[in-house]
Amino acid sequence: MQIAIPLYDGFTALDAVGPYEVLSRLPGARVTFVAHEPRPVSTDNRMLRVVAEAALRDVPSPDVLCVPGGVTSTRFAADPELVTWVRAAHKRSTWTTSVCTGAIILGAAGVLDGLRATTHWIDREELASHGAEVVSDRVVFQGKVVTAAGVSSGIDMALALVARIAGDVVAQAIQLSIEYDPQPPFDAGALGKAPPEAEALVRAAIAARQAAAAA
Amino acid sequence: MQIAIPLYDGFTALDAVGPYEVLSRLPGARVTFVAHEPRPVSTDNRMLRVVAEAALRDVPSPDVLCVPGGVTSTRFAADPELVTWVRAAHKRSTWTTSVCTGAIILGAAGVLDGLRATTHWIDREELASHGAEVVSDRVVFQGKVVTAAGVSSGIDMALALVARIAGDVVAQAIQLSIEYDPQPPFDAGALGKAPPEAEALVRAAIAARQAAAAA
Repeated sequence: MQIAIPLYDGFTALDAVGPYEVLSRLPGARVTFVAHEPRPVSTDNRMLRVVAEAALRDVPSPDVLCVPGGVTSTRFAADPELVTWVRAAHKRSTWTTSVCTGAIILGAAGVLDGLRATTHWIDREELASHGAEVVSDRVVFQGKVVTAAGVSSGIDMALALVARIAGDVVAQAIQLSIEYDPQPPFDAGALGKAPPEAEALVRAAIAARQAAAAA
Repeated sequence: MQIAIPLYDGFTALDAVGPYEVLSRLPGARVTFVAHEPRPVSTDNRMLRVVAEAALRDVPSPDVLCVPGGVTSTRFAADPELVTWVRAAHKRSTWTTSVCTGAIILGAAGVLDGLRATTHWIDREELASHGAEVVSDRVVFQGKVVTAAGVSSGIDMALALVARIAGDVVAQAIQLSIEYDPQPPFDAGALGKAPPEAEALVRAAIAARQAAAAA
């Protein structure tokens, strides 16, 4: 089973690495990170580069594609090469998935027309402008299209996907292998759960990151 | 605040990227991935390479170090350059941390002597052989030394660490920004919670990965 994760400058690392860490443990799976050209790709904060080993054109028909989000996803939702690749890969895929604002790129490719979909809580309005019926669920299955909410939700999405592909026991084994028994120190991970002053910090930080990414 | 994450061939990506995704959002933080030499470093399954931007010697005194685990951590716990770097960095650090079998490397550097510590559930015996009092907790604070259990636990550890460094509101803001409101599809993420057949699959898969890494 070939799994492709397309990277683009400004992607968020955990959006990609969370699903990778789960899906790469699926027996027989081969995960390939792809980009416009094979090269190291910078994340949103420019503190990390992840290597795309192949070009988009080298992996035209993955069984599974998983599009991560990032501070630049709106820009790349208007990138003809990436969007054309997503649209073509989706036609032949078994599963088409996104994490966070990766859903905006799926939306731009027409994948989400008329479907329920989720994304990072701060980008719900933008996703709705791409034809999706946006919901606040953490993971949304619509036929072969699966969207996940912000950043860390890709881990939950990938485990649920493994259960569909290979059964509950394999998914449970992968969950145990990555010791995913979450114990966050706060119950602040969703909009409405965090205190207002924390939400204000996030909105300011994301605005600053988007401004920096656009500079 | 300088945060260093040392990479070595065979590390587990989420061990490093989970804490990175949290700690990089700490105001004023700069995360640097380091290795013996600056170069792309392969993960445990060889499906992904992450770029170490600097050499160990270039970052001798990080405020925070975070050592990830991997299928090769036992081998690198005997690597003089890495262990010497960890030992020296720990002397000057504000926080010395590990995820998963990264604790074995901390142990080899003498950091865990007489301290309570945790690691991936499958490696508890090995960690005990390095002088730590091994416990099954997900995150263990012992003075400035913080260890986390397997793979995904680094996210919880990093959020708890941010709370100590910058206060609860900043940690809650980061949790909200990565939308860390975990909803795993199963309650199978800890030893004793997963069904026996899932545990058997993990033990077989880890043995195969370690054999492949040793080949």
